[in-house]
Amino acid sequence: MIKNLRDRKVRKETGLFYIEGIKPVGEALFSGWDIESIVIAPELLKSDFAQELVKKSEERHIDITAIDKEVFKSISEKDGPQGIGAVVYFQTVSLDRVKEIGGIWIGLDSVQDPGNLGTIIRTIDSAGAKGIILIGTCVDPFSLETVRSSMGAIFSAKIITTSSDDFLLWNAKTEIQLVGTSDKAGLDFRDSRYQADMILLMGSEQKGLNPAIINACSSIVSIPMRGKSDSLNLAVATGIILYEITSQLEDEKHANGGTV
Amino acid sequence: MIKNLRDRKVRKETGLFYIEGIKPVGEALFSGWDIESIVIAPELLKSDFAQELVKKSEERHIDITAIDKEVFKSISEKDGPQGIGAVVYFQTVSLDRVKEIGGIWIGLDSVQDPGNLGTIIRTIDSAGAKGIILIGTCVDPFSLETVRSSMGAIFSAKIITTSSDDFLLWNAKTEIQLVGTSDKAGLDFRDSRYQADMILLMGSEQKGLNPAIINACSSIVSIPMRGKSDSLNLAVATGIILYEITSQLEDEKHANGGTV
Repeated sequence: MIKNLRDRKVRKETGLFYIEGIKPVGEALFSGWDIESIVIAPELLKSDFAQELVKKSEERHIDITAIDKEVFKSISEKDGPQGIGAVVYFQTVSLDRVKEIGGIWIGLDSVQDPGNLGTIIRTIDSAGAKGIILIGTCVDPFSLETVRSSMGAIFSAKIITTSSDDFLLWNAKTEIQLVGTSDKAGLDFRDSRYQADMILLMGSEQKGLNPAIINACSSIVSIPMRGKSDSLNLAVATGIILYEITSQLEDEKHANGGTV
Repeated sequence: MIKNLRDRKVRKETGLFYIEGIKPVGEALFSGWDIESIVIAPELLKSDFAQELVKKSEERHIDITAIDKEVFKSISEKDGPQGIGAVVYFQTVSLDRVKEIGGIWIGLDSVQDPGNLGTIIRTIDSAGAKGIILIGTCVDPFSLETVRSSMGAIFSAKIITTSSDDFLLWNAKTEIQLVGTSDKAGLDFRDSRYQADMILLMGSEQKGLNPAIINACSSIVSIPMRGKSDSLNLAVATGIILYEITSQLEDEKHANGGTV
């Protein structure tokens, strides 16, 4: 059953995904996401923290299945599995909550690489942004590889999935600043001023942002390319611009005596 | 023979590595690195640019071997191989050249992930830095995965490999600014001032910088963590600090009327 959750279709039908390892399971337990069940291989469960997680799961009356270590290893996609996994109900939120929650969001148009997506989710958490809007046909945020690359941050980011049309319709009704990115833009990302509530839009690894989304943006920024490469890795580019935005806003907060 | 180059030991013994795809082969040809031979699968070679690369290789009297597309696919580790690869003599430079070349360098202490290393090499090129110093036991910069993640930038970055001891001995003789990074540092990376010739030192994914290197640094900076995560992906963190450094230096250059 857990192995079936490697299939995106099965995840979609059941609303479940599988996570593995002490850190992700710990993040899931402390995040308030609903956990369907915990799987442990007692022989592999070495650390005190792992034992604590099992105890916490018992207290919360979560189903715990103990399995043989060889069976656990056969489920695992990790080298050196830590003997604990969880089947979790995934959570997404609706676009309408962006305005209510406020803050900085990342919109990703048709992102294809699960490692990039997970790394971006990790960066969102670190930078103090709120969440991610997956626009169009994106890679699944609940795949094993994305969850692993997020290093547990999947449980603190708000995740929204939407179509390009729905996103643009919703945007036409709201007044949230949309900032796009393009290697053709003349505006250096450090010279732009960002609002406290905004969405930074990043295009796919291959194609960049689609033209309809570019049109909806109030400004388009670029990162200067000073060598022979014509682009940065998507997760690196997102991190560079996102930290500029959140750092600018922090500076403003301090300049205003922390009253913003 | 090409398949043997997947083995780090064979690469070390022969001084050769294998690259695949139109973009990397193009970068290699235009970079001035010595190419031992080109391998093509004529049936797979579709684009005009690929034909041009073959022509250029002929002009330069580089050995070209045409092989069957099925054989090419069996060598390839890519989906949808483009039918062109090259066996290239790798180039590294000695530590002593850092001072002569000047500019911004990245030092990586015991980095383990080939994708991170390739992505960092790509970022170095984009940001306008000079090269990379691999300190201690690092992943091989000439592995297939590193080269692929660098997106061809491996041919524009200067690459140095050294031990931790040799690096520290060399550093004791030079006056180049060493800036370290640590999640425990109190200095925000945006509040530090960077010199035009300097080395930014980043630790391994698991352990950070080793204490002897931390001791040799004139300052230690950190990226503020505003969420639950305690660290960023190594390539993302490198990108964020590196762009701050090169952007500060660009700003100074403009403030000085371009005379720096």
